[in-house]
Amino acid sequence: MSPSKILRKYGVPEDAVGTCGIQSLRAKYVSYLDNPHYISQVPSNADGYVLVSPKLIERVREIPGNLYVETASPTQAFLEIHNDFHRDVRSFTTGSNTPTHGSNCEIDASAKFGVRVTLGSGVRIHPHVVVGSDVEIGDDTEVFAGTAIYNRVRLGRRCIIDANASIGGDGYRIMMDAEGNIHRLIHIGGVRFGNDVEFGNSSCVDRGTFEDTILEDRVKIDNMVHIGHNVHIKENTQLAASSCIGGSTVIGRNCWVGIGATISNGLVIGDKASVLINAIVVRDVPEGARVAGFYAMPNDAWRLVVMDDTKRFGTQVREMERKRSDSEDRQE
Amino acid sequence: MSPSKILRKYGVPEDAVGTCGIQSLRAKYVSYLDNPHYISQVPSNADGYVLVSPKLIERVREIPGNLYVETASPTQAFLEIHNDFHRDVRSFTTGSNTPTHGSNCEIDASAKFGVRVTLGSGVRIHPHVVVGSDVEIGDDTEVFAGTAIYNRVRLGRRCIIDANASIGGDGYRIMMDAEGNIHRLIHIGGVRFGNDVEFGNSSCVDRGTFEDTILEDRVKIDNMVHIGHNVHIKENTQLAASSCIGGSTVIGRNCWVGIGATISNGLVIGDKASVLINAIVVRDVPEGARVAGFYAMPNDAWRLVVMDDTKRFGTQVREMERKRSDSEDRQE
Amino acid sequence: MSPSKILRKYGVPEDAVGTCGIQSLRAKYVSYLDNPHYISQVPSNADGYVLVSPKLIERVREIPGNLYVETASPTQAFLEIHNDFHRDVRSFTTGSNTPTHGSNCEIDASAKFGVRVTLGSGVRIHPHVVVGSDVEIGDDTEVFAGTAIYNRVRLGRRCIIDANASIGGDGYRIMMDAEGNIHRLIHIGGVRFGNDVEFGNSSCVDRGTFEDTILEDRVKIDNMVHIGHNVHIKENTQLAASSCIGGSTVIGRNCWVGIGATISNGLVIGDKASVLINAIVVRDVPEGARVAGFYAMPNDAWRLVVMDDTKRFGTQVREMERKRSDSEDRQE
Repeated sequence: MSPSKILRKYGVPEDAVGTCGIQSLRAKYVSYLDNPHYISQVPSNADGYVLVSPKLIERVREIPGNLYVETASPTQAFLEIHNDFHRDVRSFTTGSNTPTHGSNCEIDASAKFGVRVTLGSGVRIHPHVVVGSDVEIGDDTEVFAGTAIYNRVRLGRRCIIDANASIGGDGYRIMMDAEGNIHRLIHIGGVRFGNDVEFGNSSCVDRGTFEDTILEDRVKIDNMVHIGHNVHIKENTQLAASSCIGGSTVIGRNCWVGIGATISNGLVIGDKASVLINAIVVRDVPEGARVAGFYAMPNDAWRLVVMDDTKRFGTQVREMERKRSDSEDRQE
Repeated sequence: MSPSKILRKYGVPEDAVGTCGIQSLRAKYVSYLDNPHYISQVPSNADGYVLVSPKLIERVREIPGNLYVETASPTQAFLEIHNDFHRDVRSFTTGSNTPTHGSNCEIDASAKFGVRVTLGSGVRIHPHVVVGSDVEIGDDTEVFAGTAIYNRVRLGRRCIIDANASIGGDGYRIMMDAEGNIHRLIHIGGVRFGNDVEFGNSSCVDRGTFEDTILEDRVKIDNMVHIGHNVHIKENTQLAASSCIGGSTVIGRNCWVGIGATISNGLVIGDKASVLINAIVVRDVPEGARVAGFYAMPNDAWRLVVMDDTKRFGTQVREMERKRSDSEDRQE
Repeated sequence: MSPSKILRKYGVPEDAVGTCGIQSLRAKYVSYLDNPHYISQVPSNADGYVLVSPKLIERVREIPGNLYVETASPTQAFLEIHNDFHRDVRSFTTGSNTPTHGSNCEIDASAKFGVRVTLGSGVRIHPHVVVGSDVEIGDDTEVFAGTAIYNRVRLGRRCIIDANASIGGDGYRIMMDAEGNIHRLIHIGGVRFGNDVEFGNSSCVDRGTFEDTILEDRVKIDNMVHIGHNVHIKENTQLAASSCIGGSTVIGRNCWVGIGATISNGLVIGDKASVLINAIVVRDVPEGARVAGFYAMPNDAWRLVVMDDTKRFGTQVREMERKRSDSEDRQE
């Protein structure tokens, strides 16, 4: 089906030129509204096209200057229109292009580049790296072997990207179609790293849905860390190995995230907060807080929980051990 | 040692042609039995050769039509015979072969293929992908940069395999030899994906021991997910980032597995079940259940556990904070 | 800034030839002391140069035969001197070198090697593998596609390294400079594997700070495991998928680490210990112990905690379910 056929199927004007999030609605872009929570974010007089569910159509019509298209399942309609508009977005450009670059670069001959790639001076690209299209890499940044950089990625100066990392993969946003089958929404945002960012072996950061996923200056990421789409990590923050950050979460400056920690999506972690080893964070964390446990609470509280667990059952466990040892004695 | 020497060492007929699991015993194949639990699964009149421990030899002889070979440690003997039979199974075929393929494929020149590889139409293979032997890839499937596809893998149509993934690696089944040293059992099964499967960056799925590991249509796997050998994931199920599925577990249709969740081996997760963020699942999960926590229990119960933990120690924590703040005041 | 300028900035003699840990202090090497805990480890008469904080300078001067350089922030000064000395240490040698090798090797033409690489006989190197400099690989070892082996790595005989693994990446040791900005300390140690080690797909092991990270004979590592710098894992120990081991931890012989388990840094795990599924270990584990839970305790105790949680809230949960079901009945 061509884009115009799909637009016609849903009654959207065929002069539509793209898709966007509802907050960024603009002329001839298609967006959608299925949740009353977001009505207040619809801009007036944007000349956009908005797919709207029957239950919200009356309320949203009070916001002037857009075309509202009533449809039973706006999310499903949007998925279909959006993924069709952007069906070519996922790809690297395969084929062999030569990037623009500054002086003193070392670029291994086996590395592959898409189109519109710009490297600064002193950039080092190791063997078997693949770089997509519309990528900028700043001065003195080094990319180790086997790393994949997808399209629309900008890395600052003096970054170090370790081996086998994946930067800019498709964000994990799932939508259901009319038949109840699941699809991934194609992501059209990118990824942006500041200066002096380090990114560990086998770590992954997904590109944003419509805007960029961002790691600011001097963010340090250990091995095997996952960073979801639309995440924003501020200056000087560290993520230790095997931690996992859900989509759209914001982590402040000078934070510490311990090994194995998991932070759910859509949260805000304040500046200077510490998320301790393997903590499972499902609520916002205030500035400077130290949280631990499952689910994460102030570390002082979690330590009391653990001490209490140990204390309550210590006697029973010692008794079990005594009996087992007696029984083993009898068997010998 | 040649295969025939190892067979002779254990008294197995030298005309043996292969190894198999006990349920699939067939003519001239070697299997083993060390656990009374599996006696009922031994097929009669299969003309197979079965290594059996002394404690089970009398009982298993009641099943006619196979040759039973008594040996002190059937598991160890089987390991040695099996790994020797299949010593060449692990390898990709290195060297440069050209796959059979349909129309409109884009195959980067740096990609490598083993023998007997068949690609459908519209397949896209990005740079530095390595594909083993005996592989089929369906129409319009795309494999991103740096991914390794081992031998005996079949991918359906319109699948998307992200960068640096590993599909079909050796399953992690450990056996001990007579000296107490550990070895991995070589896996001779494969991996099979249905249509519209997506598989995230750096994610891994191991091949089956004797049969295939299976991901059905529209299964969506996020980044950095591990899927063990012999796992079977049914239609429309989603696994979020950094989740980990132990070997031989079956996950039903339309399930959700949250970020960081761990599911132990050998379990059955019912259709439409939800395993919430970082839940550690060590028991079967019924159809439609929502489980959470460590170890996973119904989400309602886990929420009460967490609320109770927070409530019980809230007063003590506030008291600790008050004292600390007093003490800091005195120091200033 | 050249090394001599940085040395001059801190008042360290310009004939300094390298940096080292305080226990290994030797002639003309620079080390640092900022923690009274380590004073007893300073060797006398080593002719080394030690950066010392004002609060420790008097005490350390009692140890003769070294030059002590007082400085406000020894850690920061050391970071700057050390990273400058070793600024070229991180890199693979890109470019195409031919390794020395024994008979019967299969080396894919796309594999890349640094300088001073020695392969034994029967070594198999799959496509797109990258090997750094000063690397030794023992007889019959096989390295699968896309794996990155950094500099100063030694692998024993009959090892199997699966696809997309990263061996010898920079250890994650963070230090703060005078402006409060964070930097990674460049690691100058290596990685050493014994014989018959297996290392899973996408797994990572970092090189040591000054010495080697070590995996002894027959250690088996599953997929997506992270092993931090300076870790030492003894013979016959197994680490299951998605486990994570913090820096400098020692794991004994014949141990089992379950899927998803996390072991904090600097711990000692005794021989034959079992760390069960997803246990979070923050204390040493005695020989032969079986630990589980968050934080890890004896498995018997953790089972009582989980049973108690389930029991305490079972009644309330059943009541909640009853009410919900009533309410749904009324809605129908």
